[in-house]
Amino acid sequence: MAQRDPVHPADDAARALARGLLASARHAALAYTDPATRTPGISRIAFGLADGAPVTLISALSAHHAALTAHPDCAVMLGEPGPKGDPLTHPRLMIQARATFAPRADHPTLRDLWLKTHPKARLYIDFADFTFVRLTPISIFLNAGFGQAHRLTPADLVPRQKGRPPQGPPLS
Amino acid sequence: MAQRDPVHPADDAARALARGLLASARHAALAYTDPATRTPGISRIAFGLADGAPVTLISALSAHHAALTAHPDCAVMLGEPGPKGDPLTHPRLMIQARATFAPRADHPTLRDLWLKTHPKARLYIDFADFTFVRLTPISIFLNAGFGQAHRLTPADLVPRQKGRPPQGPPLS
Repeated sequence: MAQRDPVHPADDAARALARGLLASARHAALAYTDPATRTPGISRIAFGLADGAPVTLISALSAHHAALTAHPDCAVMLGEPGPKGDPLTHPRLMIQARATFAPRADHPTLRDLWLKTHPKARLYIDFADFTFVRLTPISIFLNAGFGQAHRLTPADLVPRQKGRPPQGPPLS
Repeated sequence: MAQRDPVHPADDAARALARGLLASARHAALAYTDPATRTPGISRIAFGLADGAPVTLISALSAHHAALTAHPDCAVMLGEPGPKGDPLTHPRLMIQARATFAPRADHPTLRDLWLKTHPKARLYIDFADFTFVRLTPISIFLNAGFGQAHRLTPADLVPRQKGRPPQGPPLS
């Protein structure tokens, strides 16, 4: 079998693309373990960043809330295909992550950050059953189209900061 | 906690919406079990129907090919949010499924069906590492927006046929 589609290490273009997908995503697909069957389940979730780190806002009434409570290991996929062309040529970022429910004391801070990028969440963000959940990246796979697969590290997703070694171009 | 978002049984409108999402989807998010970690993984896959039943075309070079080979239980999500409005108000269909690799002898028949809905797949459909995989639905969850969640059965996804009891309106 020809190795037409090997996985490349991260490079500056891959890091910039991954950070762009991360910064622009407002929703994601979430893969979780169904606690009833221990087999995979999937949901659409809201997605955003808090201080550069992935976070979601979910309802305690959702299937994925119960799932993440039982099994915090999960995965998210970001990056929507456009209406034209083969959907598999559009870039997407897959992040295997671990979910941590944010303590209620963090809710006001996260709420203010969240509403800047998710203004329509104002309708339900203060309902008592809505909770922020941090999704800490463990391993990252970027598929930028056929033959353009990259394995990234969690550090590759973090924009360069003062005092840190350069890791790629700053986000536009 | 107020039960604002209970899960309803299937009704004719839910069945019609689910069948419409199924018939129009050309790609899906796939949740699988990562064989290396036994935790959830996620990929974008091509998605179509063959004789009304869900099927995908995947490369043996993909992470999900190895995963489905090791653990055939999986889940797919169909239904893309549009560019406007809260993405969580757009309908999506979540199907917990079991993957079965189609025998090579079925490839020519599936190939011809697939190309009717995925004409751009002509570029790679005949590569030796591409295989059709049937995704047999086990349980189905339709989320048509806040407060509009329905539990469906595999039979709810199948359009009414002659000699079968009616299950809802035919697809438009």
